[in-house]
This record gives sequence, C-alpha cells and structure tokens, in this order.
Amino acid sequence: MTTNKGFCASVCRCFFEYSTPQILVIRSTKVGTLNRIIQALVLAYVIGYVCVLKKGYQDTDGVLSSVTTKVKGVAVTNTSDLGLRVWDVADYIIPPQEESSFFVLTNLIMTLNQTQSHCPELPNVGFDCVTDSDCKAGLSNTRGDGVQTGRCVNFSSVARTCEVLAWCPLEGDMQPPDPPMLAGAENFTVLIKNSIRYPMFNFNKRNILPHVNKTYLQHCVFNRVTDPDCPIFRLRDVTTEAGEDFQTMAVHGGIMGVQISWFCDLDLPATWCVPKYTFRRLDNKDPENNVAPGYNFRFAKYYKNINNKETRTLIKGFGIRFDVMVFGQAGKFNIIPTLLNIGAGLALLGLVTVVCDLIVLTCMTKRNLYKENKYSYVDDFELLPDGTP
Amino acid sequence: MTTNKGFCASVCRCFFEYSTPQILVIRSTKVGTLNRIIQALVLAYVIGYVCVLKKGYQDTDGVLSSVTTKVKGVAVTNTSDLGLRVWDVADYIIPPQEESSFFVLTNLIMTLNQTQSHCPELPNVGFDCVTDSDCKAGLSNTRGDGVQTGRCVNFSSVARTCEVLAWCPLEGDMQPPDPPMLAGAENFTVLIKNSIRYPMFNFNKRNILPHVNKTYLQHCVFNRVTDPDCPIFRLRDVTTEAGEDFQTMAVHGGIMGVQISWFCDLDLPATWCVPKYTFRRLDNKDPENNVAPGYNFRFAKYYKNINNKETRTLIKGFGIRFDVMVFGQAGKFNIIPTLLNIGAGLALLGLVTVVCDLIVLTCMTKRNLYKENKYSYVDDFELLPDGTP
Amino acid sequence: MTTNKGFCASVCRCFFEYSTPQILVIRSTKVGTLNRIIQALVLAYVIGYVCVLKKGYQDTDGVLSSVTTKVKGVAVTNTSDLGLRVWDVADYIIPPQEESSFFVLTNLIMTLNQTQSHCPELPNVGFDCVTDSDCKAGLSNTRGDGVQTGRCVNFSSVARTCEVLAWCPLEGDMQPPDPPMLAGAENFTVLIKNSIRYPMFNFNKRNILPHVNKTYLQHCVFNRVTDPDCPIFRLRDVTTEAGEDFQTMAVHGGIMGVQISWFCDLDLPATWCVPKYTFRRLDNKDPENNVAPGYNFRFAKYYKNINNKETRTLIKGFGIRFDVMVFGQAGKFNIIPTLLNIGAGLALLGLVTVVCDLIVLTCMTKRNLYKENKYSYVDDFELLPDGTP
Repeated sequence: MTTNKGFCASVCRCFFEYSTPQILVIRSTKVGTLNRIIQALVLAYVIGYVCVLKKGYQDTDGVLSSVTTKVKGVAVTNTSDLGLRVWDVADYIIPPQEESSFFVLTNLIMTLNQTQSHCPELPNVGFDCVTDSDCKAGLSNTRGDGVQTGRCVNFSSVARTCEVLAWCPLEGDMQPPDPPMLAGAENFTVLIKNSIRYPMFNFNKRNILPHVNKTYLQHCVFNRVTDPDCPIFRLRDVTTEAGEDFQTMAVHGGIMGVQISWFCDLDLPATWCVPKYTFRRLDNKDPENNVAPGYNFRFAKYYKNINNKETRTLIKGFGIRFDVMVFGQAGKFNIIPTLLNIGAGLALLGLVTVVCDLIVLTCMTKRNLYKENKYSYVDDFELLPDGTP
Repeated sequence: MTTNKGFCASVCRCFFEYSTPQILVIRSTKVGTLNRIIQALVLAYVIGYVCVLKKGYQDTDGVLSSVTTKVKGVAVTNTSDLGLRVWDVADYIIPPQEESSFFVLTNLIMTLNQTQSHCPELPNVGFDCVTDSDCKAGLSNTRGDGVQTGRCVNFSSVARTCEVLAWCPLEGDMQPPDPPMLAGAENFTVLIKNSIRYPMFNFNKRNILPHVNKTYLQHCVFNRVTDPDCPIFRLRDVTTEAGEDFQTMAVHGGIMGVQISWFCDLDLPATWCVPKYTFRRLDNKDPENNVAPGYNFRFAKYYKNINNKETRTLIKGFGIRFDVMVFGQAGKFNIIPTLLNIGAGLALLGLVTVVCDLIVLTCMTKRNLYKENKYSYVDDFELLPDGTP
Repeated sequence: MTTNKGFCASVCRCFFEYSTPQILVIRSTKVGTLNRIIQALVLAYVIGYVCVLKKGYQDTDGVLSSVTTKVKGVAVTNTSDLGLRVWDVADYIIPPQEESSFFVLTNLIMTLNQTQSHCPELPNVGFDCVTDSDCKAGLSNTRGDGVQTGRCVNFSSVARTCEVLAWCPLEGDMQPPDPPMLAGAENFTVLIKNSIRYPMFNFNKRNILPHVNKTYLQHCVFNRVTDPDCPIFRLRDVTTEAGEDFQTMAVHGGIMGVQISWFCDLDLPATWCVPKYTFRRLDNKDPENNVAPGYNFRFAKYYKNINNKETRTLIKGFGIRFDVMVFGQAGKFNIIPTLLNIGAGLALLGLVTVVCDLIVLTCMTKRNLYKENKYSYVDDFELLPDGTP
C-alpha cells in the first residue's frame, strides 16, 4: 500500500512538472545582429509571402459555374451552286446547343444531292485502276469513300478508278475556299451568360453585373478599355485579342479559348468580385509542322425526293469552336488556416537557431567560449578514453 | 600521419556523439497545470480535428465518372399551325446525346415554311424607313435578320421597313407562350446511369446499386424518403427539390444542376459507399435585374419541296438543360499520411513550450527564480560593460 | 530621464542578445549509433521520398488541353427495309462535333416513315385492353408511346391494345440486331489532335510530335510497340487494349475512355515530354446485375412528303461513345518549394531528438547518469516537499 501511495505521488508529481529547455544567452553585438537579421528574414517571409501574397489567413473554395451562349448575326454567300444565300444562327451553329462551347461555321465545302448509288472513286487516293481485276468487290477501307463494286470505270477522260457504292457524287478532294465563304462571321456577336457559385461561402454572382441594364445590353460590345463589363463579344475582337487574324483562321478553322477568371477576396466588398476575360488560341497552328491543321467536320442534311428516295447535302464545315473556360478561387478569413500558418511560422523561427548556431560555433572568433558554455559532456567511451576536447 | 590519425579519431568521436538539449524541470502546480492544459488543447486539435474530422490518416483520391442519361415521356401540343401533335424523346432532346448533360425542350416558337427570299424586316428593331434611301443595300448587322436589298416596303398597313434577303417569313419578335407548350414535360422521367471509379484504390461502383433489380427499375421514381436509391427522376421533382416551380421555369427555360456526390470512407464496408443526389438551379433568375433570362436557342429542320427548293422550319426552343455533376473523394488508411500527421502533431507539441515559457517568464510571481535557472549568460559586450542583469 | 536611459539600454541589450539552447553531449557508442541511425532514416525519407520520388524541389502546374477528333471509314448494311446502304462519317457520328468526345453508331433499330397519326399501342407494356372503357382518352404516361384516344383497337389478330396518337407506326420493342448492323465500324480510325499547355511554365505541346510528318500520318495506325507516336487509332484496337471485344460491345453500345496523360519533368529536355495513351471501358457491364446495359439514344430525321405532311425516320442508335480525357502535371525547379521542403526536413530532424531521448532515458543502463546531467530542477511545491528525485 505504501508503494502504491508512493507511485501515486510520483505520477502526481510528474503531472505537475513542466520541462523547458535551458537557454544560453549570448550577449554580443555581432551574434545578436546576425540573429535578428535572420529572424527578420523569416518573419518577412512568413508575413509577406504566406500572409499577404498567398493570403494564408483565408479559407479558399473553387468555383462552380454554368455557362450559356447566344450568337447573333447573319452572313451571306454567293456561289454558283446555291446562288445568293443568307446564313443565320440556326444554319451556322452546330450543334444548336452545347454545355460550355459553341461552334461557328466560317467556311464550307458543300456537295449537293448525294444519293446512295454507284460512282467512280476519286483519283490519286490509291484506287486508280486499269482493268476490273485491279478492284476488289466488297473492299472498303478508311481511305476510300465507299464499298468497291469490283468494276473499273472512267473517272474522267484521263483517269480510271474503281467504282464504289457510296453517297454519290463524291465530295471532291479540294482545299477550302479562301477567302472563307462566311467571311461576315467576324462581325457576329456572342452573349455569354455565366453564373458562378462559391458553395463554401454561399456566394453567387453572374457576369451580367448589377449596373448593366437591358438598354445597355442591347447595343454594347465588349471592349477592354471602354466597355470592360459588357458580356457581348464580337468574334473578330476575340481572335484579334488572342493575336490571330479572323479571316486567316476562318479558312481552315480552329479552337479559341474564352477564359473567364473569378479570383475574389470575399473579405473585400462583393462588388469588387468581377470577372476578367482573356482569349487564347487553343489549337496549335505551328506553321513548321503543318499536319492536319485547323478544325473541321462533316455533317449532312437529309431529304427525300419525290420518289421517296433519300438524298442528302453533305457539308464539310470549317469553323471556330469557342470553348468557354471558367476559372476561379475565392478566399475568406477563417481561424483554422490562420492558426496553421502562424504555427508554421513559429516553427520556422525555430530553424533560425539552427542556422545561427552553425555560424556562431564555426565562424565567430570567440567560438570556443560559446562552445564551452553551450555544451556539457557526459562521457561513456570504453574505446576512446580521451574524452573532453 | 599522426595528425591524420588524430583527425580520424576526432571524426569518429564526433560520430558517436549524441546532442540533447538540457532541460529545466519546474515543479509547480500552477505551471504544471498550465502546461498540461495547453498540451491537452493541442492534442485535442491533432486527434479531434486532424485525425477524426479530416481523416488525416487516410490517403485520398478524386472520382472519375461517366454519365449516361435517358429521358422518357411524351407531351402533346395543340396549335392552330400544327394541329394536335405528339412530341416524343427524338423530338424534344436536342442534341440527341451529350456527354453529361441533356436538354429538354419545354416551350417553343415555331416558324414554318421559311425559304430564302425577300421580306420586310420586323418593325421597331431599327430598320423602319420611309423611302428606299433609308435602307442601304448589302447592309447586314447583328440586330437585323438578313441582308438589306435597299428597298423600303410595307410591313403592314401602318409600318414600312427595309426589305431583306433572309429566311422568310421572319420569326416574329414575341414572348414565349405561357403556359409553356410542352407543359407535360414535368412528368417526363430521366434514368441517370453513373459509373464511378477511384483509380488509386481500384474501386468501381455505379449508382444502380446491387439490390436494385430490373423489375424495380421499371416502375420506381426517385423519392428522397421512399425510394432514395432509384436512379430515375421525375423532372418536376428535380425542380421542386431545388425550390423552383417547373411550369414557371419551363416558360423561359433555365439550367438545373443534378449533383451526385460520392464521398466514401473505404475503410468501412464498400456497401456504405452510396451516391447522394442534390438538385440546384444553376442559372441566376435574379428578378430585380432581369436581363436576358432563361435558356433558349434556335435550330431548324430542313426540307426540300417539290421544286427542289430548300425550306426549313425554324424553332426557337426554350427548355431546361440538366447538367449532371459528379463530385467525390474516397479515403483509405495509408501509413504515409498517418506518419506525416503524427509528425506535424509532435511539432505542434513543441510550440507548447514556446507559449508556456511566455506565460511562465512574464506573468508568474516567481518568474525571476525561473529565469535564473533557465538562462545562463555569456557576455561579449565592448560597449555595455554592465553585463549581468 | 535616468530611468529612460536605463530602459533604452535594457532594450538595446535585449536586441543584441542571442538565445541558444544549452546542449548536453552524450559520448557513447550505443547512444551515438542509435542517434545516427534514426537521423539516417529521416534523411533517407526526406531526400528519397520528398525530393526524389515526389520531386519536392519542383513547382507543379496542371494541364490545359484542347481536343479535336476526326473519324474515318465507311460501313455497309444490307437490310430488307433499306437495301444495300453505305454509312459514312456524316451518317454515323452524332452529333457531328462535340467538345472532347465522339459517338460512333454501331447498331440501330430504324423505324421508317413515321407520321403523326393513330395506331394501337404495343402489347405487354400495360395498355392491353378488352373494351374502350379500359382506355382513358388523353392519358399519356412515361411508359406509353403517345396520348391515348380512348379507343380499344386490334394490335394483331390475338392482341387488343389502346389506340394512341403518336408517331406511327411505333417502334417495335425489340432487341438490337446481333451481330451489330455496322460491324465494319471496328475498322474505322480516329485521328485525335490534342494540344496541351502548362500556363505557369508557358510550355505548349501537341500530340502530333515534331518527327511525325504528313506522309507518315497518311498511313500510320497506333500500335503500342511499332507506332507508339501515331495519333490515329483503330477503334477495334482501342476496345481490345481495354480488354473488351468490339463486336460484343457494339451490339448494346457502351462508353470507352481514351486517356492521354502528359506527366512532364520540364527540368529535362522538352522532347522527353510525350503523351501516353491508355484505354479503359468507363461504363459498368457487370453481367450479374444487368439492368439497362450499354448506351443508346433515339434521334430522328425529318422529311416532308408530297402533301407537305411531316414524316420522320426514327433511329434508336446503339454505339460507343469515346470520351477523350487528358490528364497531366508538369514540374520545374523552383526555389520556394525547395526551401519549404528543406525547412520541413530540418524540422523532422528535430523529432529525432524526441525519439532518441525516449529510448536513452528509459532503456539504456546508464539512464540515471544521463538524466542527472540532462535535467536540472526548480521546486515550487507546497504540497509535496519531497522535491529532488
């Protein structure tokens, strides 16, 4: 029982003990100044970089966003096939709606009145022939436009190619028109509506700012200097800001990024949280290694003629895809990251001693004096009895 | 050689040295209690917040997801233009497939039998005229619907406007029908199939849970209380849960977010990892600043008439776009983050001494006793010879 | 004034003070070895794991990417309805362009010449009837294909069902053809163009590498061994690499992920930064719980017949959606993360003392000798006057 009591007392005494390192204070102008300079550097880093620049006292949240776009404008084309023709939004936006992207047709190669029938393959794609034996019935490969019938027919007065079952007449293998057919697309405008949300802070905002009214929206066009808050962009301006020429890009097509960034400090007034627009070409034009440039795809409009036979108009459409990309981060004061950063800062101050010790104990003239005072020794060497230095 | 030997021995001795700080133990109930309280706070933070709440002992991985959707239902409209007409999924889902989003047409303004021809512009959009000189041949701007021919013609008995080459007749500038044409869309259902994967843990799951069989899927509809595992959602329920009225939203259209969250603790049984569905309106309806509300776009169906002339039906479609957004994070025990967090916790314990010292050496009555024992001094002042305090 | 001077001097003296912990050096082979081993472990962790494996000396940036795809190939079908028919890219890619995804039609159920009219519902979906009173005029629910007229009519010689207003004739409720209609789709190829950007390092690259020229691109097909840099993929190869059989998958459809990863160490030459392609099936085929397998959707082609009445061809399309997913992270040397990691490493070295002390002061035979030298005591106990241990 006595041992028990003694044990209890011992635990109790232990509980009320407080251990703190013994400190040697060196009073020296040199060492002291060195110490304060290094401390100042660490403090400057902690306060300047972590707290002010990186806003370490804030909790941050990523942006949630929804985007809708609406293009306006008409373009006119005049070709021998179609005559004078007007193209409006239902004609040149394909598909009519996408999640955060829109495609504007700027150039096209049209093949009218295709039907499922037989016609000769295009020459110079590997299906030239002299006799039927050069063609193989049933063959279809990725370079051909249809399934071979096995016959060799005249493509023109000079060329003979294998006959195929395909949508005939075939689309000629030609370059897109230059200047582009829908050159007027450069004057189209697009209204981009973007609602964002920072769920952690229950903060919502949209890019149509409160002071933008209906009247202003009806005539404004984005301009970085005069109309920076107008969410309506002229397509030519978008490409020009990205350092591209619209007409050149329109010939083969391409991809433009419309970047909307919402970096907000929610400790400041909410009205200071405004979107910033930047534009960049996303696909690589790389003139030196110009393999498969631009952006195009094929689509068709299907009709039935009087005999109930299906015909189609094949369109190889070149154009610019605009990808709307919304970035952002919001920060707001929160006690947890503040404490964490203060803690980390104090821990860094502990490293000051490590660095100072290194300098004091190796470079200072009185290093031996300091060493003697800083270090005590317990020797326990069996092998090397010449203990104290 | 002797120096060499001496150097070796010195390095060797140095290698077997162990430096540990000298500690002053203060045995005092006050100081000890203070010390233990601050230690307890730090431990509570490390264990409670870092380990339990933030699961600091787990490695985490972000979700990879694929989504497919399938809408079912028919709606009926009865207009003077079209008569009684049924709309099925191929009619009202535009485009027919998207990556993780689907659009349901709820309201529309249809303009039948448009052809490329001449007609007067709509009045009150800036193209009203009195004589031909008010119109400029070849002009087309983003507010107009076509290219001006330069003539001024009668729009109605009271208004004269510039003539344009366009898809005529033009779509009237009118408000969408209210109640919406496809009011029955509120009863449509959508099956959302969602497969997720946590690649780091090679964990796959889908939102059709193992106990959900084909029979149940044929009649179930999601209900937070009675059928929380049914992946089939009635569109009206989705909007209602988000606090919106379907019929009101259907008139001008809008964007709904269907959020599926998969936050899983993979240290627990895999069956506990289930999706959680929430719904939120993504676009801002903001009644005070109602510029360009809702969601709509134009698309067309193209026909050829008997004379092989192209006609089209222009549809200004209003509707609700449902964006399926999959969030998630999975955690599983891993030794690396566990050690990192224990290390960080121990480092925080080191800060306890800093705080306690501050209190002990400035506020305690016996602070001078403690100071005398804690600090030793080495003086190296040339300027201030009055050294020891 | 004297006090003021004294205070100044005191502050000044304080400023030039440098506090460093007093250290007890234990010279012992055992303790020293233990100390060095633990130090070595911590150093190995810091250098090996943090610096080498995790590249802690680098700043990292996430990838920005843009993707375009172009499918090539023709397939042929031969059905009683349509006769011999060729399908090209404009027929089987739906919609014709998407942001980073493309859908290839592989199988279909076609319902020709639908018009808005009356026809009996399909049997066995819940609308079987005996007399008109079993049907309810105006009823339309999600399982039906139209709006009931209230009449009960003969579906076939054996079954009577409610009549509906719908797009008639209705699509039969049948299984998709097996083998799939467009079995030839396995030989289609897709060119995937991917431009990436690491904005922090102003680094751009695309997956058509500099040494890939136009001639090579015209005939190459991706092969992990022989053509690992060719950005043209045969669809069958994609599914095969993912462990799926194309023909089986083509029947009901599915979703394939084409993953392009760009993990680049920009301290190395830029030419070493190349894309890595992997393929994975994203939807869950799960043969045990086969509810709603595959991927399909309905779409229609609209025509007007001679009487200007709208007809349509309804297509239930089964196919494979390819989602192109671009991952990546680039790292480059930066002084800030380097310093942070060195700091954290030094802080970890501080923990070595904690661990060694624990062992030295509890397990070593000479622990009492060490304790006497390490600890000094100040007693301040009123309750327990039996101070020094």
